[in-house]
Amino acid sequence: MATQPSTDHTLDPNLRSFVETANDPTTDFPIQNLPFCSIDDPAANAEHAQDSDTPASPTSPGRLCVAIGDSVLDLDMLMHAGLFDDATIDGEAFDDDFFQDLHDCLHYGGLQQLVAMDPVFARFLREQAQAFLLDGQPSGGQQARRLRQKALTPIKNAKLIAPLLPLNYTDFYASIDHAKTVGSMFRPDNPLLPNYKHVPIGYHGRASSIVVSGTPVKRPRGQQNIDNTPNPTFGPSKRLDYELEMGVIIGGGNKLGNPIPIDEADEAIFGLVIVNDWSARDMQAWEYQPLGPFLAKNFATSISPFVVTRDALAPFRIQGPLREAGDPAPLDYINTAGRSTGFEITLEVLLSSKAMREKNIAPVRVSKGDFSRMYWTFAQMIAHHTVNGCNLIPGDLLASGTISGSTPDSRGCLLESTWVGTGSDGKPLPRKAIELPTGEKRVFLEDGDEVIMRAWCERPGFRKIGFGECRGVILPNA
Amino acid sequence: MATQPSTDHTLDPNLRSFVETANDPTTDFPIQNLPFCSIDDPAANAEHAQDSDTPASPTSPGRLCVAIGDSVLDLDMLMHAGLFDDATIDGEAFDDDFFQDLHDCLHYGGLQQLVAMDPVFARFLREQAQAFLLDGQPSGGQQARRLRQKALTPIKNAKLIAPLLPLNYTDFYASIDHAKTVGSMFRPDNPLLPNYKHVPIGYHGRASSIVVSGTPVKRPRGQQNIDNTPNPTFGPSKRLDYELEMGVIIGGGNKLGNPIPIDEADEAIFGLVIVNDWSARDMQAWEYQPLGPFLAKNFATSISPFVVTRDALAPFRIQGPLREAGDPAPLDYINTAGRSTGFEITLEVLLSSKAMREKNIAPVRVSKGDFSRMYWTFAQMIAHHTVNGCNLIPGDLLASGTISGSTPDSRGCLLESTWVGTGSDGKPLPRKAIELPTGEKRVFLEDGDEVIMRAWCERPGFRKIGFGECRGVILPNA
Repeated sequence: MATQPSTDHTLDPNLRSFVETANDPTTDFPIQNLPFCSIDDPAANAEHAQDSDTPASPTSPGRLCVAIGDSVLDLDMLMHAGLFDDATIDGEAFDDDFFQDLHDCLHYGGLQQLVAMDPVFARFLREQAQAFLLDGQPSGGQQARRLRQKALTPIKNAKLIAPLLPLNYTDFYASIDHAKTVGSMFRPDNPLLPNYKHVPIGYHGRASSIVVSGTPVKRPRGQQNIDNTPNPTFGPSKRLDYELEMGVIIGGGNKLGNPIPIDEADEAIFGLVIVNDWSARDMQAWEYQPLGPFLAKNFATSISPFVVTRDALAPFRIQGPLREAGDPAPLDYINTAGRSTGFEITLEVLLSSKAMREKNIAPVRVSKGDFSRMYWTFAQMIAHHTVNGCNLIPGDLLASGTISGSTPDSRGCLLESTWVGTGSDGKPLPRKAIELPTGEKRVFLEDGDEVIMRAWCERPGFRKIGFGECRGVILPNA
Repeated sequence: MATQPSTDHTLDPNLRSFVETANDPTTDFPIQNLPFCSIDDPAANAEHAQDSDTPASPTSPGRLCVAIGDSVLDLDMLMHAGLFDDATIDGEAFDDDFFQDLHDCLHYGGLQQLVAMDPVFARFLREQAQAFLLDGQPSGGQQARRLRQKALTPIKNAKLIAPLLPLNYTDFYASIDHAKTVGSMFRPDNPLLPNYKHVPIGYHGRASSIVVSGTPVKRPRGQQNIDNTPNPTFGPSKRLDYELEMGVIIGGGNKLGNPIPIDEADEAIFGLVIVNDWSARDMQAWEYQPLGPFLAKNFATSISPFVVTRDALAPFRIQGPLREAGDPAPLDYINTAGRSTGFEITLEVLLSSKAMREKNIAPVRVSKGDFSRMYWTFAQMIAHHTVNGCNLIPGDLLASGTISGSTPDSRGCLLESTWVGTGSDGKPLPRKAIELPTGEKRVFLEDGDEVIMRAWCERPGFRKIGFGECRGVILPNA
């Protein structure tokens, strides 16, 4: 069974869909993208309702869909309608076992199961969805028209849930600009530690508190000691921040004790999502020595609902990683030597206060990000993560760490943007606080603020491929 | 349905079992203990065999058992034989739903499911198992004798698997003696950081690489830079260490955003296991700044197969935590004020080299531990972990951190025992290296070494309650 990615006919910029919104050049979800997502399945969840007092009662993984224009397409309905019956990839047909496994995935396991299966299943689903969605196909009469209607749901009416629930979450620290800037705050005498250019620094985050875009985030309470007094205080964080990140959803993985070599690491990338690694800076500063961030981060991590596949991102690969003259060569096990393991992705963070929403004022952009400036690529992070034998599980989330650039308007968190309201990090920053159209000012996030992250890829000769949005509103916690 | 722990008739030291080995005063598993464990279920796993190339294919949670003397008792067989049909707790009977849920747990979900259920289910199972195992009960003829034979398996013939697979693993740093000693090595000028006596310091570990006692551990490879040269080296760790810890298996848990108050934290303790948090000290020293340990720890964490319930440990509660004059009072949210949230547990670490095993020389003790000296109790760790809203999931593992005492023979890892072979930490230590009966010396672990951890509780008027063993042999990784 072929598992290699196809030659990329799925990326042909001339392909158009009968879903008209997918042909708009500004859409995140043209027919060339088709990211996977999961929508709520009320029927499957009903049988679990009786367990609702159990915090972690199993819930349905949801119905597996792909996004197209302003809608989502239910893949199980395509299979149920018999559309896959005579399907092939590169002329190769599939046996009954294949269709049985596919049926189980669409009926029971959803994306959580798909990421654990042979990559040919995901490729098959994406190609079949594309074939169905193509414009100019014979619509095939009333039955086909009815299927188009039934299997497509406007995103605004679909209840998007987490695409899957990662069992393990690792957060890296791969933006050298972020490491330098934040490092100079926490360790003015020693901003970039000696290990940074050798080790893709990472640490384990909390998987249980990963939530999907749109889930409100309650301001965390905890210990703080901003003034380094003998005794800490306790209460809601006063320095709540976002962190703009990209994350990999792992496909396949590796067995304990068997590292993923650097030249196979890219194949462990099932797809990418936007990640907001919410951070309470006052709690972080007090707790993080000597074992790293803990309660400052683990109260919530938001991910976007759409997993953009590695196949859809093929046109946007770049050699990466960022290196300057004098930088040491990476050790062999993380040396990508000339291969294109980077991604060129543009990101932005927008902010909307409660007052702005009440006055119908659109969110304002507070930062722009450039993923091509990362010091380490996801392939390097994967090879590093497993070189000691650590096992990655299908569906695991590996996030990049805050994506910052070298300029003040490209800093991926408020901490870096305003330098705790001082407007100076040695060099003066352009702003002591972010000014909103209402006249409100922000040094850190206030209750009612909504953070909106977006990310997309653009390159001449290809359709724009977007990641959708990752949103979250801050709830008070008095 | 009553969820309060019963008055402790299950702990009566005069109770005896017809399993004679359970009546030996030295056994870890008298009829008063009955820790839960899981044994391999070949029939249930057979249907997953076809997925064996998938690293994380779902496997059966195993058959839920309790340990008794030198044997394990299969609880599903008791239910299947009808032993639970007319059972009550404190005279209270149970309805059909209760038995349906119990059946599902024993047939499908195992311990992984039991920890998510109302605590009355675990209590019911422990009490029913005890009633079945009591000596002097009428054996009830041939059928009952056959059941005794069928449902009991000698531990040496049972394939013990991980009792459950924690979805999240948090490691604390609760031994102040450990923090002081290790701190003085990594930060000679600043061994105990200012936050230590206020914050139960913890960090997220790796859940996917948790393995059950008996699983060999391959020596990890990675970056090291012991001499702080400009460039690190790469290869197998030369400073491989164990860490002696106890761990809590969480029962119930909490929803995101809803902290567990300190006076309810104890109820989130389903039971305790022994934990060996293997550590590569050379990798740790190079990678751990600024975000904490990562590859130095996540290649493997071993847990003992027996989960000793909170009920069985009731006689061994102590007020705790350890405090000295001048120590700050804990903040309210972690103030246990006079309640007995500690556990009095004795631990030991034994070492056996390959040469010793070849010569039939018994393992030698290299350290003894006293869990009552911890600065923070598990209840405090649970309240702290959730105070920011972070959600604990049933089955999560919270480990204590290395359990060290104030004397050189009570140091819970090799790093502290020999001070990297220097035999001095300012004050001279009694040994530069551990000398084995073969004449071999150990500063860190060598290939073929087996580390054996044991833990138990003893108190006059009660039977000894033991945790069994947590073992692991180091495999080479050339």
